[in-house]
Amino acid sequence: MKSPPEPTGDFTEETVSSRLVHDGGFLKLRRDEIRLPDGAPAWREYVEHPGAVVMMAFLDEETIVFERQYRYPLRRHFIELPAGKMEAGEPPLSTARRELVEECGYEAARWWHVTTLHPCVGYSDEVIEIYGARDLTHVGACLDPGEHLEVFPARIDDALGWVREGLISDTKTIIGLLWWSRYGRAEVK
Amino acid sequence: MKSPPEPTGDFTEETVSSRLVHDGGFLKLRRDEIRLPDGAPAWREYVEHPGAVVMMAFLDEETIVFERQYRYPLRRHFIELPAGKMEAGEPPLSTARRELVEECGYEAARWWHVTTLHPCVGYSDEVIEIYGARDLTHVGACLDPGEHLEVFPARIDDALGWVREGLISDTKTIIGLLWWSRYGRAEVK
Repeated sequence: MKSPPEPTGDFTEETVSSRLVHDGGFLKLRRDEIRLPDGAPAWREYVEHPGAVVMMAFLDEETIVFERQYRYPLRRHFIELPAGKMEAGEPPLSTARRELVEECGYEAARWWHVTTLHPCVGYSDEVIEIYGARDLTHVGACLDPGEHLEVFPARIDDALGWVREGLISDTKTIIGLLWWSRYGRAEVK
Repeated sequence: MKSPPEPTGDFTEETVSSRLVHDGGFLKLRRDEIRLPDGAPAWREYVEHPGAVVMMAFLDEETIVFERQYRYPLRRHFIELPAGKMEAGEPPLSTARRELVEECGYEAARWWHVTTLHPCVGYSDEVIEIYGARDLTHVGACLDPGEHLEVFPARIDDALGWVREGLISDTKTIIGLLWWSRYGRAEVK
């Protein structure tokens, strides 16, 4: 494998000042005054995000846990891998363990880190950690009040067909599935 | 391929009212009062996004065009597929043609649609259309003032190695590459 080419330019943008311009209780928005690489002044606006985790929870060698839920910004239901946001100071693997129980009702005896994603580099500082989970025990879900979703098992090969057909279009879910199909089988711990 | 299971619940959230709570010139934020599926009142906050396109531009059978640029929200450079935001009323394929010239300096004689992505279903209504482009002619780039990036060609197989190593972590770029590796070679028009 060839390495990426040596950078020919440094495009770093320097922070001059940073201001929280919106905190609505769910989304935080920052507006920073910056200096472009050529020295010119400019500004950047972006969502400040606590980070999130995605779980590929294996019921057997070929079958993982999915969720179907309504995503209001797009006014429709989506099929997704289970996921959740980090709470303040929470390590990502703790979030993954907590959310897999709360949303899906499973504890897992074995966990491994799959990869790190940046879903919205243009306007959010969100980082997503994908984890794999095995040796599941069903302990019962415990949804937050107001949280409505359904959990179902599906074969990875079927779900890869749903990606191809456009029935799965959520990026974290597509990457979990395609990652597993290309790189995954070698790295189960 | 088995179909997804029949939904057992309808989790649709009804809009009661919608309000633009922030318009900073780059990001628009909405806060909607809604009714949950159980009838309870709640609210949703999300980024209103014009939509975006991603281009896989083939220089030859194995080689596509990449960009390296600084992404301020994450304070680092990223290797990405060329991409751009739709302007008001602009059809996505027109955005793809325009951005491939402006950012990378290429016109393409053949275009095809690859797939549709939803990168941030929890807090943005952004939709991304991925296009493939072939039969490129170099006509020279024309970056916006204040836009700094470098363009370079790379073999898809090398870039898939960079995904595996974590050198590429931008979700739209990962999906373009993994999609091509799993489904792509059959669908070049």
